[in-house]
Amino acid sequence: MSTKIEQTKFKVALIQMSMSDDVDENISKAASWIDKAANEGGEVICLPELFSSHYFCQKEDIKYFNLAESIPGKTTKLIGEIAKRRKIIIVAPLFEKRAPGIYHNSLVVIGNTGDIIGLYRKMHIPDDPAFYEKFYFTPGDLGFKSFKTSVGNIGTLICWDQWYPEAARITAMMGASILLYPTAIGWHPHEKLEHGKAQFDSWQTIQKGHAIANGIYVAAVNRIGLEKLSDETAGIEFWGSSFVADPQGIIIAQASTDKEEIIYADVDLSRIEYVRQNWPFFRDRRVDEYEKISKRFLDEDSI
Amino acid sequence: MSTKIEQTKFKVALIQMSMSDDVDENISKAASWIDKAANEGGEVICLPELFSSHYFCQKEDIKYFNLAESIPGKTTKLIGEIAKRRKIIIVAPLFEKRAPGIYHNSLVVIGNTGDIIGLYRKMHIPDDPAFYEKFYFTPGDLGFKSFKTSVGNIGTLICWDQWYPEAARITAMMGASILLYPTAIGWHPHEKLEHGKAQFDSWQTIQKGHAIANGIYVAAVNRIGLEKLSDETAGIEFWGSSFVADPQGIIIAQASTDKEEIIYADVDLSRIEYVRQNWPFFRDRRVDEYEKISKRFLDEDSI
Repeated sequence: MSTKIEQTKFKVALIQMSMSDDVDENISKAASWIDKAANEGGEVICLPELFSSHYFCQKEDIKYFNLAESIPGKTTKLIGEIAKRRKIIIVAPLFEKRAPGIYHNSLVVIGNTGDIIGLYRKMHIPDDPAFYEKFYFTPGDLGFKSFKTSVGNIGTLICWDQWYPEAARITAMMGASILLYPTAIGWHPHEKLEHGKAQFDSWQTIQKGHAIANGIYVAAVNRIGLEKLSDETAGIEFWGSSFVADPQGIIIAQASTDKEEIIYADVDLSRIEYVRQNWPFFRDRRVDEYEKISKRFLDEDSI
Repeated sequence: MSTKIEQTKFKVALIQMSMSDDVDENISKAASWIDKAANEGGEVICLPELFSSHYFCQKEDIKYFNLAESIPGKTTKLIGEIAKRRKIIIVAPLFEKRAPGIYHNSLVVIGNTGDIIGLYRKMHIPDDPAFYEKFYFTPGDLGFKSFKTSVGNIGTLICWDQWYPEAARITAMMGASILLYPTAIGWHPHEKLEHGKAQFDSWQTIQKGHAIANGIYVAAVNRIGLEKLSDETAGIEFWGSSFVADPQGIIIAQASTDKEEIIYADVDLSRIEYVRQNWPFFRDRRVDEYEKISKRFLDEDSI
């Protein structure tokens, strides 16, 4: 593992794709997209959450535990070979089988040697209609993570983590230049017309907020397409819209809602430094007064 | 002090105004605007940061310490009389003289009996060109605050606090239905053309982010006008744009950049409950893993 930061700029590539119910097909499609991203100069290439399968959490069914795989395992080996061959960093989300009865929504960071240089396990686990993740995923126990790679310091979080300023803050404090959020978020078809725009706006806005609060790049990598696991379910229309925000919260790359595509952005350390010098929020944090963050709620503390 | 929440809805009024170098004039203008807001149904009425004077922090000059006043004092008495007469809650920011050599950028919450029911001292103190607040203001030592009033639970923060997710989070955890941010923010005239829009967008976006993260109303109350303390300084063009965001981060009231005006919004507890039931972020917070928030930075923790 290289711990020396050799570059002051690196190019991230976000692969926005759709998934079928054929795992091998999804992996081989992802591999093709990674090659394309590498051809186009991508140095840190990130796939969407649980990229090798449909978003199975729409239903609670133990059969889907069969989709889980060990880390290291078959998929990390295959992705590792690509990373080594193309000399790139790959962020690959996986349904991790850790032990019988312990599964995680995880991601690995694979270095340009092909080795796994990082493992992150999703810390915040949702449970909402058609997003029954608490059934499948044990909450992460590795804490928040930022990984020093050969091109730069990369913070990794997953989907529901997006809504937690604490996760963004702690990861940024570990020196990350970018927060990468592999994601699987979409509309309930019956809600899209009435609430779709507001839901999307909230999702992008809070992440832009993390960029601003921390003077850091933020990237979300979503899937596209309507996925319907059976005729009993309405399915989820994944809204794509993968994006990169700069350290001032300005959108510098934005994907469509419905197309497979790769978007690129440069992570420029001098831009981070410039923004943080102009808005020195880290300098003025009241670290003496934040310990209450570790409570659930403080109802009795009013006044 | 009433600790019983009697209403499920209350109307906030934000008074966006300009200030002159005449303190008495500013206070009497504020009093008129408060009366107007009360006439129009405002129940919680909030003034801008340091509303009784020019934004003197553009320069470091000990003469401006003479603007500070005790709490309680002349201004809180006058504001208290209005609050009692109109049976309203008033949030009045003040330059607080606490002791010789200890001054704070503070606010009081005055209840509908005319009594001071809350005191908050700005926790995060900026120091940027023309915002030399560290010279004047001792950082707050009362912690973050939410106050139970006769109409609802009100969280108060001041200006630079806006950039800190920790401040919003802790205040929301104390049961606040709204975060009120009296503010004095504006453009350096020489920067406005190039950076003005991006600066404004960042400011509003991060606050919308606090609304979303916490399922809470957020209101910022800014001043307007170009204030130039002397011919030696370029002055600051305060950008107004006071606003209220709802618990999903949707702007529900928005003021102009350059007019004195009052904007109103209903704080509806049922809307907060609806949003938090749909996006139950508080439920899934990883309170076991947030203690690092209390550190300044974590450079050694990468990987």
